[in-house]
Amino acid sequence: MIVRGRFITFEGTEGVGKSTQIANAAETLRELGVDCIVTREPGGTPMAEAIRELLLAPRDEPVNDLTELLLMFAARAQHLYTLILPALEKGQWVLCDRFTDATFAYQGGGRGVPGERIALLENLVQGEVRPDHVVLLDAPVETGMTRARHRGQLDRFEQEAVSFFQRIRDTYLARAAAAPTRYNIVDAAAPLEQVSARVGELMCKFRSDLL
Amino acid sequence: MIVRGRFITFEGTEGVGKSTQIANAAETLRELGVDCIVTREPGGTPMAEAIRELLLAPRDEPVNDLTELLLMFAARAQHLYTLILPALEKGQWVLCDRFTDATFAYQGGGRGVPGERIALLENLVQGEVRPDHVVLLDAPVETGMTRARHRGQLDRFEQEAVSFFQRIRDTYLARAAAAPTRYNIVDAAAPLEQVSARVGELMCKFRSDLL
Repeated sequence: MIVRGRFITFEGTEGVGKSTQIANAAETLRELGVDCIVTREPGGTPMAEAIRELLLAPRDEPVNDLTELLLMFAARAQHLYTLILPALEKGQWVLCDRFTDATFAYQGGGRGVPGERIALLENLVQGEVRPDHVVLLDAPVETGMTRARHRGQLDRFEQEAVSFFQRIRDTYLARAAAAPTRYNIVDAAAPLEQVSARVGELMCKFRSDLL
Repeated sequence: MIVRGRFITFEGTEGVGKSTQIANAAETLRELGVDCIVTREPGGTPMAEAIRELLLAPRDEPVNDLTELLLMFAARAQHLYTLILPALEKGQWVLCDRFTDATFAYQGGGRGVPGERIALLENLVQGEVRPDHVVLLDAPVETGMTRARHRGQLDRFEQEAVSFFQRIRDTYLARAAAAPTRYNIVDAAAPLEQVSARVGELMCKFRSDLL
């Protein structure tokens, strides 16, 4: 019998080091003998990546909040049914850079879309599927933004004001506080070795919880 | 006081002559002194046209039904709030090549997505907004497909089987039967002059209903 894999998402505002920590988490899991894949949202399949490009491209036409929300879930439906669920059913673990928590944080907290609208689409697209574990890399907004700006050209989201990212961080923290067994807050403002050590420990814990 | 314009949609399966009849309808309305604009779905703004391209492009990756449905409504939200509603509020009439009836027909009847899911997104995106009049150009599926094939390269929808379009036609007819005051069925298999005369008459009627 193949045991369903675990679905672990990595969340946080810009520049908190998600890419680095997902790579670190995957390495730790592989050392523990876990077959895992790394993916990201919006994206993860060619069709979903094409939707990502539409979403991130800076453009003159203001993008309606509902359009943005529906595009996020369109990409998510494609990603979930084409890549994530088939991998989980094969027993693979899936590490995903952002998922629906990011929609609650960015479109909800950031843009002000009511949470009930997001929850309605979450239920429509995901049914009962939720991440088994969320790793929230948390840092003061200014810390992350300074790092993100060093990466060069900013996308449509990265061009937003500090207050936008502050609301996003607040939403993430409120969601984590409401479901502490699912969410794992990691202090991403700590030195890199400490952050990496903490993320590695979490992966060991998630693995041993199943044994 | 500016009176809100009328929102008229043109529906039907492939090759029933929607483009010709929308141009005809616009000409009739302009002769009657009505300020009207012509637009289409999916599309109508640069962002929504970009979503249209994503939807129509033939691709190797099978597109999940929910992804397709959400992309349709993402394009619709952008179109509705950026173009259609502002035009109606200025008193312009809006003639639109396809709208949500097409979603019920193509994604519902054609792909088998449950109507309640479509209605849920219709309410989310449109609130109470519905077309004032729907002109349904109806013809046997074979008639329209023969015409559509003569236009050359088929898009992702046009590549579907006859049974797919039969279900779409059936859904359109059922929706028209359920709301006969909103829907106007035009026999699109009749000679062109008859179809054009009938569509012209409808525009005159819609105009005089308001006087």
